[in-house]
Amino acid sequence: MPKKSYPLDNVYRLLEPGPVVMVTTARRGVANIMTMSWHTMMEFTPPLVGCVISGRNHSFDALAATKECVINIPDASLAKQVVGVGNCHGTKVDKFKKFKLTPMPASEVRPPLIAECYANLECRVADSRLVNKYNFFVLEVVQAWIDPAKKSPRILHHEGRGVFRVSGETIKLRSKMA
Amino acid sequence: MPKKSYPLDNVYRLLEPGPVVMVTTARRGVANIMTMSWHTMMEFTPPLVGCVISGRNHSFDALAATKECVINIPDASLAKQVVGVGNCHGTKVDKFKKFKLTPMPASEVRPPLIAECYANLECRVADSRLVNKYNFFVLEVVQAWIDPAKKSPRILHHEGRGVFRVSGETIKLRSKMA
Repeated sequence: MPKKSYPLDNVYRLLEPGPVVMVTTARRGVANIMTMSWHTMMEFTPPLVGCVISGRNHSFDALAATKECVINIPDASLAKQVVGVGNCHGTKVDKFKKFKLTPMPASEVRPPLIAECYANLECRVADSRLVNKYNFFVLEVVQAWIDPAKKSPRILHHEGRGVFRVSGETIKLRSKMA
Repeated sequence: MPKKSYPLDNVYRLLEPGPVVMVTTARRGVANIMTMSWHTMMEFTPPLVGCVISGRNHSFDALAATKECVINIPDASLAKQVVGVGNCHGTKVDKFKKFKLTPMPASEVRPPLIAECYANLECRVADSRLVNKYNFFVLEVVQAWIDPAKKSPRILHHEGRGVFRVSGETIKLRSKMA
C-alpha cells in the first residue's frame, strides 16, 4: 500500500512517545542512514524537532552542509536493521544495500525516505544556534508520510547498550496535556 | 526501601527511551509539579537534558527564576496521577496533596523529589539561549536517585490526547549505539 500524506499538526503524536528513528541524509548524490534516539518535539505547528547528531557521524557533515534530512520511524520488526545501521559508518558502506532498506524519493527534500519505515518526516534545518556547542539541530518538518496499513505499530525505545523496550499495552485517559 | 544514588554517567539510560516525566519546581517555598514529554538527552557526561516547558505553565516562571528543577520518572502505576498533574494548574491547587504524591528533600537543589517515582534527577539550568524562542531549557543533571527495588519498570510513553503506551517486551541486541 502506498504511503499517505500525514497532517503536520499531528506529527508530535509520532515523536512524543520517544521512538528510535533512522535519519537519512544525502550529499553529492550519496544517501546515508543513521540511527538516533536523542530527539524531542519543540513545537506543534509548524512541527519543530530538536535532535543531537554526533559530530563523529558522517550524517552530521551532510546535514550541516545540506540542511535537509528525513526522520524515518521503524517499527519493532526492523530492530536488527536499526542496530546494524547504528553500528557501521556511511563512509565505508552503502547502508541501504547492506541492510536491504529501500530508498524512495521524498517530495520536498533530497534525502530519500526509507520505504520499510511506517512513517517518514521530511525536514529542513530551522535553527543551528546550538550546533557548535551540543551538535543540536532544530528541524522543521515540512512533509510527513504514513503507512495507512500499520495501525498502532509497536515502536522501539532504546535504553542504551543495545537494550530496547517495545511499546506494549495502550492506556487511554482523558487529557489536556501537550 | 530508600533510594540509592545513581551514576550520572548512566542517566541517559533512564531518559533515552522517552518516558513521560513529572518535573518539580519550587519558588518562594511553594513546590509545584508539571507533566512533560518533550525532552531529550543532549550529552552523556555531565548529563545534559534539553526540554520544552511551556510559557503557559506555572513551572516555567519558577524554573526561569530559580534555575532548578527535578525530573521525576513515574512508572505505569502512576498513570492517573501523571494525567491529573498535567490537567490542572499549580497556581490553583497543591498538586502533591491533590494527587497524594510525597515530596522528599533533594540534596543539591531546592525543589523536592517525588517519592513515588522510581527515579529522580536533580537538575540546574545550564543554557538558556533557546528559552525565549522555544521555551527550551538545557539542564544539567547534578544528582540522580533510583529505587533499587524497581527492576525494569514499565514506563509510560505519551502519544498525545491522553493515549499512552506502556513499555513491554525487551529486545537485547549487541550495539555500539549512543
